[in-house]
Amino acid sequence: MRKSKIQAANLEGDADDIEAAFYDALQRGDIDRLMACWADEDEIFCIHPGGPRNVGPEAVRTSWEEIFATPTRLRFQLEQQLFFVGASIAIQSVFEYLQVNDEKKLRGPAVATNVYTRTPAGWRLLAHHAGPSPTAAAAPTRTARIGRLH
Amino acid sequence: MRKSKIQAANLEGDADDIEAAFYDALQRGDIDRLMACWADEDEIFCIHPGGPRNVGPEAVRTSWEEIFATPTRLRFQLEQQLFFVGASIAIQSVFEYLQVNDEKKLRGPAVATNVYTRTPAGWRLLAHHAGPSPTAAAAPTRTARIGRLH
Repeated sequence: MRKSKIQAANLEGDADDIEAAFYDALQRGDIDRLMACWADEDEIFCIHPGGPRNVGPEAVRTSWEEIFATPTRLRFQLEQQLFFVGASIAIQSVFEYLQVNDEKKLRGPAVATNVYTRTPAGWRLLAHHAGPSPTAAAAPTRTARIGRLH
Repeated sequence: MRKSKIQAANLEGDADDIEAAFYDALQRGDIDRLMACWADEDEIFCIHPGGPRNVGPEAVRTSWEEIFATPTRLRFQLEQQLFFVGASIAIQSVFEYLQVNDEKKLRGPAVATNVYTRTPAGWRLLAHHAGPSPTAAAAPTRTARIGRLH
């Protein structure tokens, strides 16, 4: 259940780097790489659209293993990202459009709130909350650096 | 659209104080008190279950005014709260059960992710993301103080 140190060492950088690693691991169906993106905290939680709240590393891992158990190729297209970046925690809101196998029509969007914490090894996920959403309204991508604007 | 300084001055305290003020304002249908709980940032966002992402103070306010426009009495029951508390941002995950008027059966739950930022005037909401959820599984209420556990 523990993250490998080699994987963790590859995940330094800004919160948007860990976000890229997270969605890349999702697309590859790489459960170890995916779990290496998460903080080493008992309270991490993950909510898939319309699903239960999975709390803790084991429950979070199991929830993704169930998704990866079907031989499905997933491609994510992310749109209209909002970032709040603080000293120790960052929040991202993003619309996720999903291509399943070779389907021409994208599914979604889901709207996801991703929460990251800064650890000595880099930013790590604390929470992923995805829910159903109507079509995303047009809006620019924006980042607010909390504590620097004031 | 600006928050009154008198209202803001009454909203000092910890992130869970502002959370209490937020749900109290919801139950009272007090739009000014509700908006006084939010940070003064263009990027604040609010997602009601299954609804669009409302970005910015005007869109957030309008989304609540539409809910308050119907003469409905709302009572919230909050369960299984998880808190991540950092230096400048705090995150709360909570199940919301809702009593509408005198209905005996509670509606929900919705699962909400609330994000707060610490401002000179106290903690304020940056984001409220509520989505549909199956019945909440039993789990304790927990708080993780990020940066203090490591």
